[in-house]
Amino acid sequence: MQSDMTMPLLAECASDLSKSLPRSQRDPVIGIIGSGDFSRSLAIRLVGCGFRVVVGSRQPSRVAKGVFPDRVEVRSQREAIHAAERVVFAAIHPEHYHSLVGLREMLAGKVLVDVSNATTLTSHKQSNAETLAELFPKSSVVKGFNVVSAWALQTGAHDGSRQVLICSNCSDSKAMVLELARRMGFSPVDLGSLCASRGIEEAPLILFPSWGGPILTTLILFIFFYGYIFLRHILLPYLDHRENNFYQLPLVTVNQTLPAVALVTLALVYLPGLVAAVFQLGRGTKYKRFPCWLDCWLCRRKQLGLLSFLCTALHAVYSMCLTLRKAAGYTLLNAAYHQVKAGIENSWVEQLVWRADLYLSCGILGFGVLTLLAITSLPSVGNALNWREFTFVQSGLGYAALALSTMHTLFFGWDFAFSPGAYPYYLPPAYLLALIPPCIVLVGRLFLAVPCLTLRLAKIRKGWESTQYWPVNNQEPGGSREAHPQQNFDDV
Amino acid sequence: MQSDMTMPLLAECASDLSKSLPRSQRDPVIGIIGSGDFSRSLAIRLVGCGFRVVVGSRQPSRVAKGVFPDRVEVRSQREAIHAAERVVFAAIHPEHYHSLVGLREMLAGKVLVDVSNATTLTSHKQSNAETLAELFPKSSVVKGFNVVSAWALQTGAHDGSRQVLICSNCSDSKAMVLELARRMGFSPVDLGSLCASRGIEEAPLILFPSWGGPILTTLILFIFFYGYIFLRHILLPYLDHRENNFYQLPLVTVNQTLPAVALVTLALVYLPGLVAAVFQLGRGTKYKRFPCWLDCWLCRRKQLGLLSFLCTALHAVYSMCLTLRKAAGYTLLNAAYHQVKAGIENSWVEQLVWRADLYLSCGILGFGVLTLLAITSLPSVGNALNWREFTFVQSGLGYAALALSTMHTLFFGWDFAFSPGAYPYYLPPAYLLALIPPCIVLVGRLFLAVPCLTLRLAKIRKGWESTQYWPVNNQEPGGSREAHPQQNFDDV
Amino acid sequence: MQSDMTMPLLAECASDLSKSLPRSQRDPVIGIIGSGDFSRSLAIRLVGCGFRVVVGSRQPSRVAKGVFPDRVEVRSQREAIHAAERVVFAAIHPEHYHSLVGLREMLAGKVLVDVSNATTLTSHKQSNAETLAELFPKSSVVKGFNVVSAWALQTGAHDGSRQVLICSNCSDSKAMVLELARRMGFSPVDLGSLCASRGIEEAPLILFPSWGGPILTTLILFIFFYGYIFLRHILLPYLDHRENNFYQLPLVTVNQTLPAVALVTLALVYLPGLVAAVFQLGRGTKYKRFPCWLDCWLCRRKQLGLLSFLCTALHAVYSMCLTLRKAAGYTLLNAAYHQVKAGIENSWVEQLVWRADLYLSCGILGFGVLTLLAITSLPSVGNALNWREFTFVQSGLGYAALALSTMHTLFFGWDFAFSPGAYPYYLPPAYLLALIPPCIVLVGRLFLAVPCLTLRLAKIRKGWESTQYWPVNNQEPGGSREAHPQQNFDDV
Repeated sequence: MQSDMTMPLLAECASDLSKSLPRSQRDPVIGIIGSGDFSRSLAIRLVGCGFRVVVGSRQPSRVAKGVFPDRVEVRSQREAIHAAERVVFAAIHPEHYHSLVGLREMLAGKVLVDVSNATTLTSHKQSNAETLAELFPKSSVVKGFNVVSAWALQTGAHDGSRQVLICSNCSDSKAMVLELARRMGFSPVDLGSLCASRGIEEAPLILFPSWGGPILTTLILFIFFYGYIFLRHILLPYLDHRENNFYQLPLVTVNQTLPAVALVTLALVYLPGLVAAVFQLGRGTKYKRFPCWLDCWLCRRKQLGLLSFLCTALHAVYSMCLTLRKAAGYTLLNAAYHQVKAGIENSWVEQLVWRADLYLSCGILGFGVLTLLAITSLPSVGNALNWREFTFVQSGLGYAALALSTMHTLFFGWDFAFSPGAYPYYLPPAYLLALIPPCIVLVGRLFLAVPCLTLRLAKIRKGWESTQYWPVNNQEPGGSREAHPQQNFDDV
Repeated sequence: MQSDMTMPLLAECASDLSKSLPRSQRDPVIGIIGSGDFSRSLAIRLVGCGFRVVVGSRQPSRVAKGVFPDRVEVRSQREAIHAAERVVFAAIHPEHYHSLVGLREMLAGKVLVDVSNATTLTSHKQSNAETLAELFPKSSVVKGFNVVSAWALQTGAHDGSRQVLICSNCSDSKAMVLELARRMGFSPVDLGSLCASRGIEEAPLILFPSWGGPILTTLILFIFFYGYIFLRHILLPYLDHRENNFYQLPLVTVNQTLPAVALVTLALVYLPGLVAAVFQLGRGTKYKRFPCWLDCWLCRRKQLGLLSFLCTALHAVYSMCLTLRKAAGYTLLNAAYHQVKAGIENSWVEQLVWRADLYLSCGILGFGVLTLLAITSLPSVGNALNWREFTFVQSGLGYAALALSTMHTLFFGWDFAFSPGAYPYYLPPAYLLALIPPCIVLVGRLFLAVPCLTLRLAKIRKGWESTQYWPVNNQEPGGSREAHPQQNFDDV
Repeated sequence: MQSDMTMPLLAECASDLSKSLPRSQRDPVIGIIGSGDFSRSLAIRLVGCGFRVVVGSRQPSRVAKGVFPDRVEVRSQREAIHAAERVVFAAIHPEHYHSLVGLREMLAGKVLVDVSNATTLTSHKQSNAETLAELFPKSSVVKGFNVVSAWALQTGAHDGSRQVLICSNCSDSKAMVLELARRMGFSPVDLGSLCASRGIEEAPLILFPSWGGPILTTLILFIFFYGYIFLRHILLPYLDHRENNFYQLPLVTVNQTLPAVALVTLALVYLPGLVAAVFQLGRGTKYKRFPCWLDCWLCRRKQLGLLSFLCTALHAVYSMCLTLRKAAGYTLLNAAYHQVKAGIENSWVEQLVWRADLYLSCGILGFGVLTLLAITSLPSVGNALNWREFTFVQSGLGYAALALSTMHTLFFGWDFAFSPGAYPYYLPPAYLLALIPPCIVLVGRLFLAVPCLTLRLAKIRKGWESTQYWPVNNQEPGGSREAHPQQNFDDV
């Protein structure tokens, strides 16, 4: 008897069969109020995970055969709540919550799971879960499962997002729903008490929350460079001497803008790391929080990097299509005409040949390295790396890509930037402007590679703190620290 | 004592050690009959998941040291079955099942797992699992684990497919094997009773079941367009005036066919959604099932989309290789010769320059958007999106890609379609034919964006049903519905 | 009472709430010594997984509010160890392990988890875990969690590597930590006793262990072909008749080297499979281990294939950029000049047009097939295939890609290899050398497709063994085998 009771986890599936009771009487029963799409998908998933499910409908007779799987019982709402052992899902529209008030006493002591979404982003309203909690003060309301689609529920967590955000004021009920979510194959995230429910309800309304800033930055850079090149190459020449370059607008100008945007964005990926290092060096500790803007910037590096890669890839495709343009054909034909008329047998200019081959080479290699970086950003590839490999790829290859892209631009510029003709209307070429941020980053990185700075930074990152920091900022007596020379003891 | 018994799940690993029994005596024992590749991999996995394993071999002495891990005991078949608490895997060739008949009484009451595959797709034979169940009427036979390779078993579910299809006539035994599969890191799918075992056994024989229809569709479209272009551009000109265009067969004709196929296939991705909306609008409810062909079509949209992307990507690469062709060089040289001979200093035609730049731009952007769509089709990327983000990408970006591709084709066509010369032998150019389906889809989509239709559709998709629908189709008295104004109550 | 005790696993979350004890008193308590970065991340994860955590710091008062989540108690090291039920993590620098010696008696009987990394790859030192085990002989030391980054711990196993390598001399303690790791969402791998700890500690120091050989192979091939082409096309012509081709170094030579490397590497992917088949045919059994070099080679096929794909992709991009080069423009202009001067109206050479179109077609298709192969190498895509689909893609499409690449090279070579001019300085062109390995593989594959060999191989792979093999190699009497005609009985 004792040995049976204390049998470890893994033995349970073996001991399961030895019971005389039929299985269906031993599984926990989950209740679902509502018989709509979400209810149906939830029931399919719960049954598939070994639970018994009773669906409560206003009109159980109206629910068509075959809508729910055979193992799901469809009964009245009252019967479903009665049958549910502990957990009842409220899978109905929030505007109909009040209609359940008559079942208040039956729901007392049960865990009521609110799965509804917010419909608008209004900041001054109560959340649906809070409304439900007010209506049923004797039940413990748990918010969750709203970020999951009916489709993900039905097809399994393979194909949908696994993350389920959960909150509740009752930690026991929350623990139960967390466990339930885990058994259903989701990755529940505990967000604390019910005051987080507004955020959870609004989560599906906010698209790609971490992409807003980076996309905006990229867009602003694109508009700036496009406008600048339009002004310098098209508008001013037209106003000045009626040169018609407007045909360049759809393709050529875009292809001049994209590499500038890509280069600046890539520099913005590595700039915050340098700024953070400077902060740590200046403060002499890693334990003080970075300013908010820097924290936020550091968290957006992956998105900035992917947008930089997107611009680079588009630039590559645009460039490879350049010779397909009718304009390229006409230019070549006219050049041939003039060469023949001028009687030049060989128009070869060795220097220009080298320039083109060098900037193409650097560009292709830089693009290749960036592509490797983008591939390791795929969740399934990143998961297969340990963190040192990930760091090597993201930092080592990242700087290689930045250096190659900068060289691509420098070779493209060649020595033309030194001739006065490169500054019509006193405007420098766009690629010169785009070179400023990456050059700052590369010079800054080289500067940090000076041994004394590198060593100090490594020490700080291992937990060491410079003593002059504490008295100034935290008012902790410096003396008490001297007594504990092992202050970096507690870190790995 | 009481507190020990009621200790929750998560405490068990902590309480585990407090027992005086050695661990090996408390783990459940799994038996495996057979000592081949599959048996070995199964044993490695089971042992790795904390089970004790006893392998039963005809000749245990012949099994070489080191083939099985140390913790696996290799004994006679009789001893292995005796040692197994409940579950015995039959990892032998199905043609040898009869040789186990002598062990029938020993196997009585145990769960016998059949892991065999079908060797041919013959529809009139009994499945291996059914044969096993007949031979051992007192054991409960469970079918499963056959879709998993020995390799996936050994290396863990990371690298192999996680899905394990399981069926059995005994629901208790099935529940036990489902739990076992879960503990081994697989995602078991319960397919019901043993009559499903034929399908499970044949599953590994059918390659990419969901890809058959879409690939066939794409192939038929490819053959049609290739044949059409061959006829119009190569065969008829040759028969008519001996124009030799046969050199176009390997590359140029393929590159004219691919965009046509890609455009039609992309339109086929968005057409079924429109048809479904029309069905829902016409019926006034979303609760009636779509016809079978539409259901099937809706389920194949992802595959059609990926095939369309494949054609688009090939078209992009082919196009970018066009100027590498010797033919392109010769054409340009001959044009230069004629321009010089004719004494034309500048052959620039502004309109054709604009046309080329515009259709290249639209093509590149459309290809870029399609690539984003294809990337979000990767399981690991799709998992990282919540369902509203997924819908935004798949529907919003999808229509953008369709619109850009259509514009790419329209700009390519320019105004040439209005000149009589575009219809040699009364055959319209292929791109005109390919434009028909996307134009239908885009016009249909615009039509559904009319406010009254959009609002009605949104209402229907929230669960509202038009009253005139029910009496006609379901013969349910309309009156009883009026008494329940909250008929859309039960949905989320 | 009885029914409560025997309640199956899935019911526990339901029964959990029925207890009168508050939940926090029933969760197991985990102790963490150290309050650094890793400790903090570990605590966040453990609390998120439902454990109670007590962190032991030298100076609990110095740990700032908000560094640890609210549910984590920060106390003295002594109190933390006392509070921990069984498991204590030692999240401090290994050089400070000796400072814990005073707590030796308190730690007796507890499980001490060493999470430290090696700092250098020195083969003659004791591992950190072994040092810890020596210091605390009464505790059971378990090595693990070191390959996980603090970041992966905090953000969940979604974003970091899931694999956790674990070893210990005490199998009970190890089992407990394995279970703990599983509950934290990781995939623990049991590597046996503590003597494996050195390897585990050094694992994060070795970057991409399975990539070393393949990358070296590819590099050597690259250097060989680059040198060969440099010699044949640039250096010897320069020494011979001062022909200046040095401008080809950055791009043209690289683009001639890459396809040769890609082709040879791709052949190296399929060669070991053939060698293995020959071994199996020769020995008449699949049960004898392959020689070590072949085993190793077979395990590196995926890496070789991906490197071959990388070279192919770079070759494709380089080739598509060829017409962007200034040199290409000059060549065309000069050709136009000469054509005009020579008065050739049409320079079209039908044969050369066919050659270019054919080799471009084969190249594009081969590249397309290789891309499909590379995509199915992504973990998340490969997971969605069952093993027969995976085999079909990797083997079927792989040979298709090899055949198309070989044809690409053969069409590129055309009949030029038969002219004496193709052998300046008696050196054959590089592509001829690169064709040797793939031709060997393709001919070998065709040879193995001879029915008698195919059937014999299939029999062997099903487990059949030729009788003449055993007496020669294993000295097992052949007679005893004849008595058991079902020797292939034990395999699936």
